[in-house]
This record gives sequence, structure tokens and C-alpha cells, in this order.
Amino acid sequence: MSFELRDRDLLGRIGRLRTRGGVVETPVFLPVVNPISQPIPPRRMMDEFRCNMLITNAYLIKKHFGDEADLEVHRLLGYDGVVATDSGGYQILVYGDVETAPDEIIAFQKRIGSDVAVILDVPTGWGVSRSRAEWTVEETLRRAEAALPLIEGDDALWVGPVQGGGYIDLVERSARALGSMPFQVYALGSPTQVMESYRFTVLVDMIMAAKLNLPPDRPLHLFGAGHPMMFSLAVALGCDMFDSAAYALYARKGRYLTSRGTMRLSNLNYLPCSCPVCRRHDAGELKEMLRGERVRALTEHNLYVSMAEMDAIKQAISEKTLWELLEARSLAHPTLFSALKRLSKYRDALERCSPHSKGRGLFVFDSAGLVRPEVTRHIRRLEMNYRPPEDADRLLLASAPEAKPFGRAPQYRHLRRIAEDALGCAASGVHVCFYTAPFGVVPVELSETYPLSQFEAAEPLDRETLEFAAEQVGRYVEEGSYSAVILHRGVNDLDRLVEDRCREACRENGRPLTVVSDPHPWGEEALQRLIALLKKTLA
Amino acid sequence: MSFELRDRDLLGRIGRLRTRGGVVETPVFLPVVNPISQPIPPRRMMDEFRCNMLITNAYLIKKHFGDEADLEVHRLLGYDGVVATDSGGYQILVYGDVETAPDEIIAFQKRIGSDVAVILDVPTGWGVSRSRAEWTVEETLRRAEAALPLIEGDDALWVGPVQGGGYIDLVERSARALGSMPFQVYALGSPTQVMESYRFTVLVDMIMAAKLNLPPDRPLHLFGAGHPMMFSLAVALGCDMFDSAAYALYARKGRYLTSRGTMRLSNLNYLPCSCPVCRRHDAGELKEMLRGERVRALTEHNLYVSMAEMDAIKQAISEKTLWELLEARSLAHPTLFSALKRLSKYRDALERCSPHSKGRGLFVFDSAGLVRPEVTRHIRRLEMNYRPPEDADRLLLASAPEAKPFGRAPQYRHLRRIAEDALGCAASGVHVCFYTAPFGVVPVELSETYPLSQFEAAEPLDRETLEFAAEQVGRYVEEGSYSAVILHRGVNDLDRLVEDRCREACRENGRPLTVVSDPHPWGEEALQRLIALLKKTLA
Repeated sequence: MSFELRDRDLLGRIGRLRTRGGVVETPVFLPVVNPISQPIPPRRMMDEFRCNMLITNAYLIKKHFGDEADLEVHRLLGYDGVVATDSGGYQILVYGDVETAPDEIIAFQKRIGSDVAVILDVPTGWGVSRSRAEWTVEETLRRAEAALPLIEGDDALWVGPVQGGGYIDLVERSARALGSMPFQVYALGSPTQVMESYRFTVLVDMIMAAKLNLPPDRPLHLFGAGHPMMFSLAVALGCDMFDSAAYALYARKGRYLTSRGTMRLSNLNYLPCSCPVCRRHDAGELKEMLRGERVRALTEHNLYVSMAEMDAIKQAISEKTLWELLEARSLAHPTLFSALKRLSKYRDALERCSPHSKGRGLFVFDSAGLVRPEVTRHIRRLEMNYRPPEDADRLLLASAPEAKPFGRAPQYRHLRRIAEDALGCAASGVHVCFYTAPFGVVPVELSETYPLSQFEAAEPLDRETLEFAAEQVGRYVEEGSYSAVILHRGVNDLDRLVEDRCREACRENGRPLTVVSDPHPWGEEALQRLIALLKKTLA
Repeated sequence: MSFELRDRDLLGRIGRLRTRGGVVETPVFLPVVNPISQPIPPRRMMDEFRCNMLITNAYLIKKHFGDEADLEVHRLLGYDGVVATDSGGYQILVYGDVETAPDEIIAFQKRIGSDVAVILDVPTGWGVSRSRAEWTVEETLRRAEAALPLIEGDDALWVGPVQGGGYIDLVERSARALGSMPFQVYALGSPTQVMESYRFTVLVDMIMAAKLNLPPDRPLHLFGAGHPMMFSLAVALGCDMFDSAAYALYARKGRYLTSRGTMRLSNLNYLPCSCPVCRRHDAGELKEMLRGERVRALTEHNLYVSMAEMDAIKQAISEKTLWELLEARSLAHPTLFSALKRLSKYRDALERCSPHSKGRGLFVFDSAGLVRPEVTRHIRRLEMNYRPPEDADRLLLASAPEAKPFGRAPQYRHLRRIAEDALGCAASGVHVCFYTAPFGVVPVELSETYPLSQFEAAEPLDRETLEFAAEQVGRYVEEGSYSAVILHRGVNDLDRLVEDRCREACRENGRPLTVVSDPHPWGEEALQRLIALLKKTLA
């Protein structure tokens, strides 16, 4: 295998891609390098920007240098890293056609020694009719099929491009068909217009349609994606490679990229960035530069932040905080936040594909975090794989104490002691479950398992998160087989919602519910009332 | 005046502080420079890090160099920017006492030519008894009073330090008393332990207690605050100056600062930062450096990100997006997010002090944004300063169309046309108000005013935001004097919540409510039904 996985978080992963030009770590951003002119010479990209891989355009090389003998792409660019080439698909998208044939451009990429090469696909683009989209998918598949004998045994890695555009079922069909062919790398075509128009929820659907229908053990390249504000989203959905000329094209238009969005240099009074360009200059100096110098400075800034964002993402994967990074980045624009919420549609896939990580504790901020795999996994576990202890007859549902793990909190241990003193062995018939947001029910015997004692929630949590937690408690009560329920609650919003939902659940299944409510549910007075109640109930 | 305001957003501002050593723009971060040894020489701080102002310790200078003739602090440090000096208050906090007297250290700071100097205060610290806290406040006030004749007419700027620690009423008293004295700069003392223990909601209360009781036209220095993740919060609450040795102290402990929190170098596999240090090296290289070299590299990284964060904040103020930056930064830690929510306690002050900015449109992500001054201001405006048109007899409450401004949306203009055709001049008795989240009610004639046509909300919005909006609609209906209400709604969560709340309001004040509900409320069919209803009602 040319691709080896090293680490994972959500659907994102850190991998090693072995090419004949060298090994590259993914996720990786490949700057698009124009074979004719380069604002940053490829050698500097390697030395100063640590770009170990770039992408250039085989079609343009063929057009401009095709007649030269001994043409070799690394030599042409003066770059000894890994070189990917595009085949002219992008030119088809922009100009409608190219002056080369599929087999010709395959042969040419072999001739110039591309390390990673693409067959000549027909990009779907955005805003096309369904029949046009269908045709691009089928034509790309025909070309892929026809390419197979030509690339068999070649030592470049060949890329199979998935098409379908915004027609999600076509993306699925394209991915399934291509996925059964022996490409070493897959790509998702033509999301550029989708991204440029900030249709990030559509992008989520497109990527997931491709991802869930392609072989998971091969890298997925998102063609033409070059804005650092969306890298974390795409990586979290399983994209491993990115390429774009945006860093250079945006610079030419005076645009300044950041992980919080695009800014116009003309609107900048300060440079909100720590990169070498922005620490060496201030906004006034940049604006006063001659155009050529200014474009070069912006290009360098844009490339620095793109590379740094990829490092931030890899660090987040390695410490299992990709979700937190994703949430922070989604505040770049409301459409990115909408895209984050769109992940609720893929809750199950996220849960299934995410590692059972035991990284740093979870930070829970608000209802956007309800989609996290850890939340889904806990709820699923309680629903599918959990049985209360054998002798559990009554359910004592208690507001979670402050300290974690709940089952080791001093207040809970105190309760246990006085309950055993007062009730003797009858106490063992009472099953203690804590309730807390966002997880809902935490049975005492699970309270030390990950992540139930390793999360920190921002108080006060929002209404939606509290209602979600109360709903989980209600379902647990509905589906449990306890003979009676005792609710031991405080007086906050969550407590009230839990009581309402418990009443409903107990009415539903005809179980008696008794409630002990106190502003300090873990204070001595409340605990004594609880013990008295338990005594009466168990008598 | 030595302080001139240039721009504002929330309670944050960009200002120019004129000192005899030069003009400094605020908000500004002053690295604490140890007079004995400097990991980054002050000259390099100026040249490479663009630090135009720093702070050093007059007490330590006195102790080590006090006997030298012609002692001058700029010369001593080899730095020609603006130099502030601390008086030894920090040493009192740490060691309990210092070997100098208040008048002595004032004279010394004058002698060495500090540009900004502090009287010898007694910091309250954290976790002290109320009576101790009271004493520190009173003693600092006594010293301030005693200092006045000594500093009168001096051409340094003198700082009056507010004390009180976590006792908010003491902070208020301290601020009021000091605020009546002629200091050119104020400072809030001893928040360091509060910040180190992540008590950011307490920090919010402390800063607001000082801010709201000090003269707003003078700068407020937050002593000992040096973590870039909390700069935006403190600036948004009106802090103008920051100083800390954290950039260097953390580096010595292998800590790597980012605007998303503190990381340990030992846990870093990648460097999630674009600064010159992090682009020149990778994590492995940093870890393998000899200790001295590594500490220097980390110190430089920490200082780069601190300076860059201040620039990001200034840029946000200048484009009026400080709230958005604040939200993004508050995802660094749940306690910071809690602090953001704590701002709801200061909703009125935020609204009162924030400029009526007409900057970039608002981005609304979730219920955390309900505290924004623009939301408070709109609601207050409707409650206090708004009267519907004279002839408005009936209220037509309509789901907001997709385009903004709502009153210019093609669908609304179509409705107007067909309503005028069908109803003639009777149409003018119907007052159209749109409902939308988070703003609640948008009367058609206000729909083009800022920010009602310049906001973008992340769909779907969370439950709390929707309930907030519905509540505003309900109150408007309750308090209005319309003779009848027609609700023209869609079928989403907001529509349902609005209908529920309207029913309640109409029941309350005995007004008839009619409802037209349609999955496409702005479709032709729904509009025709609405017109028919209006015809019947007005007949």
C-alpha cells in the first residue's frame, strides 16, 4: 500500500503517502505552481515554507514545453520534493475543452515523471443540468476505465476523480464505480465554485457522499480547495489532500487569507497574523509597496497561513481535539457554522469512523457539540449495550455532583455511607444514575469511563443542550425496567427539564416517581431527606 | 489629555497614549523586561517584534543599580521606546513586603526617567479575607492620596492602581475613590491568580466593577495579564494596557502560548502557528534543541503571538467585528465561554458604551450572540422609542422573506401590490412587521436600518435563540395597541414558537388572532389565502 494511516480523529487522519518522489505526510496542502511563472520559486517553497509536495499542470507544460527532449517535471520546476500533476481537467471546466486526448496526457505525465498523476476527467462544475452532470460522471468513468491498462504497473500514483457536482446521488454513484477500480488516490472534483459561493452545507454533503462510497484506506484529494478557513472541516470529513492556486490568485486581487476568513488588504489597518511577513511589516507598509512587491508579500502570507493551518489541524488530530478546532473555525462565517450543524446528518458515520480516543478531556461549549461522536457513542451505548446491575430494582436519579468522576465525588461517597448505614443491604437494590448535560444519564458504575469523567462544560449551557440531556434521561426512564424512580434534583434549568421529562416518562410506563428537590441537592439536609424517603420506600 | 480615543467597538477602543517617551497606540501589550537579564534584548523587541512600549521593575533596578550615578532607564535597557515601570507592588504580592517606602520609589521612578510610573500599591491578591482585602484597598488609597503632591506636575504619566481582588464591591469603592484623583492612567491590580485559575467570570466582574466606576476617558491597565487567549475579552471590557512576563516565564517551563490556549511543547507533534519561529522549525527540532536555545525560541514564539493577537484585536475594533473575535476566542476553554455568557449581566453597559457602528454586517451564530449590543439596542428601541404608523390598526406579523432588506424583498413587494389592488386604501390600516431571529420584530419601515438588513444568521439557529426571538414577538404583541393580529407563518421551529407566544399574548390582552400557515409562506398560494383573509377582516 502506498498510504499508511498513523493517527485519526473524527473522519480525519494523519497518513504517510509513499510516492516514488518521496514520502509525504497527510493531510497536505499542495500549492498550485504555474509551470510558466512562479511568484515563489518552488525551491523556496521547500526551504522556507516547508512544502514537501506541490502540484503543477501537465497540460500547460505540454502546451509550452512539450517539444523539448528529456523533459522532466522536477528539473523543470527546480524542485526535488514530490510533484503531482493535473491533467487539464480544470481547463476543461474553465474553457470547455482542451487540446489533448485522455491517452495522450496520460502518456505525457508518465514521460515527465509526475509522482502523482491524474487521468483527464470531465469536471461537473456547479449550476449545470442534471443530464450534463450525468454525462460528466459517465464520461469520466469511461475515461477511467480506458486509462486502467495504460497506467497499470506505472510507478506514479494515479488519481481517480469523482464527479457529480451538487447532485449527491451522482457523487455516490461516481464514487462507488471509481472505488472499485485500482486507483491509489481518489479525488473529489470541482468543489471550487461551491466553496467560492460559501455553500458549505452542500460541500459537506458532497464530501460525505464521496467519502462513504470510496475505499477508506486510500487518500481523498479535494480538488481546488485552498482556503485555510475550511481545511479543518474538510479534513474532519476525511479529505487528505488539498490543492489550490488561491494563495497566489487572491494575493493578486489584494486578498489576505486567514483561518477566520478572507480580508481585503485595503480594509486592513493592522495585520492580524503572526507570520514572518506580517511581523516584518505593518498594514501601512504593505499597502504602500509597489504592486509587484505587495503581491509577493501577500502571496507569501497566504502560503504561510495555509501551511500553518495544516499543522494546526495535524496537531489537533494528534491530540484528539479536532472537534474543538472545527468549532472555533466554524465561527469564520455563518455558512461554516451551518455546515458544522449539517454534520448531525452524518452523526452515525462520525461515530462509527471516529477512534475511541482517550485524548485530552472534551470541552463542551454549546449545542453545536451535541453532534460529537463521544455524545452519540455514549447514548448509543446506553441504548444498545447497557444493562443495569442485576439487583437494581429502583432508580435513584441524582443531579451530578460537582467533582468528577461523579462516582468518586466526596458528596456521593458520603451519600453511599449514610445510605448503607440506614438501609443496610436494601441499599443495593437502589441503582444510582447521575444526570448531566450533554450526556444525559451516567450510571454510577460507568462514571469513571471515558469521557464521562473527562469533560468540561461551559456553564450555563444553552437551552438546546439542556433539553437534549433531559430527553436522554426521559428515554432512559421510559425504557428501563425499574419498579420505581426517585429523582434527587437541584433547582436549575436542567433539573426542571429533567423532572418534566421524567414525569412524562413515568406516566407513560405507569411507574411511581418521587422527587426530592433542594437548592443544594448534595447538602446534608437534602441528603437526610433523601435517606428518609428511601427508608420509607424500601420499607 | 494624554489619551486620545480613535476608534471603538463594544467597550474596547483604539487610543493614542502620549508619553514623554513617545506616542503609543493602545490596546498595547507591554512585555515585562527583567532589568538584570533579558532573553530577548529590548532593542530586538523594538526592531523585530515591534514592541514600542515595555515595562520593567523600578524596585529591582533600585535594588541592583540604585547607587549608580546618572541612572536612566532607557539607557540601562538599551531601548528607545516608551518605558513603564512597576513600583514593587508585585513583589509585595509575592514576598509580602518590599525594602522601599512609597515616597522613595516615587522619587526613584522620577529620577530614572520612567515614561509611565506606578505608585507603590498593596495588591489584594486572591483568596484573602475580606478584612485583609479592605485594608489593601484603604492602604492603597492612602498611598495614592499621599502620592498626589509628589507627582503633581511631573511629566511622567502616573498610574493609580485599583484594588479589591475578588470582592467586587471593594473594587467598585476603590475605583470610585481613585477615579476622583488626577491619575492619567488607571490599573486593575492582581488579576493574575484569577486568570491562572481560569476564573474568567470573576475576572469579568472585576474588570467591569473597575471600568464602570473609573473615568472612561483614561486608559485602564490590566496588571499582569499576558495570555493571548484572554486579550480580546479584556479589551472588549475596556482594558487598554496589558503587561506580563508570561511570554518568558511560560517558555522556561516548556509552555507554548496560542490564542486557543496553552500547550506543552512536549505534547506538540506539529507547530500550530505561522510565526517566524514556527515556520523556521518543526516540533521535533524545537524539542531537540539545547535548553537555552529552546527557551529562547519559545520565548520568541510566545512574544510573536502576543503581539499578533493585539493586532488582530485592533483590526477587529477598526472593522467592528470585536464581538465575532471574542466568540471565536472564547472557544479556547469552557471557562472563557462562561465568561462570554457572563456579559449578559452587563448587557446594558455594553449597549450604552458601544458605538452605533455601521461596520460590516453582523454574523449571528448562536445564543451566545444574544448579548450583543446590536440585539439589546434593537429591542430597547422597539420598547422605548418606537411608535407604529398613525393609521396602523391591525398587525400583520409575517415570517421574514429570504432577501434583505425585508421591506425591499421581491416577495414582499409583490404582496404589497396585490394587497393594494385587492384592498385599496384599507391596506394602509394594516401594519406589516416581520419576525426573524435573533431580532424578534422588524417593522417594515425599519427594515432598512442598521443592522436589520446587515446580519447573517447561521441556519438552523439553536433553540434558545429562537425562543428569545419568539419572546420578543410576544412582548411586542402584548404591548402594542393593534385591534387585531394576523400571523402569516411558515412551518419551522421559529414559526411554531412565534405562534404559541402570540396566542398567549392575544389571550392576555383579548385581541383576535388569525393565522395563515404555509410551508411556503411567500408562495403565491399562501399570499392569495392571506389576501382573502385580509379582505374578509377589513370588510
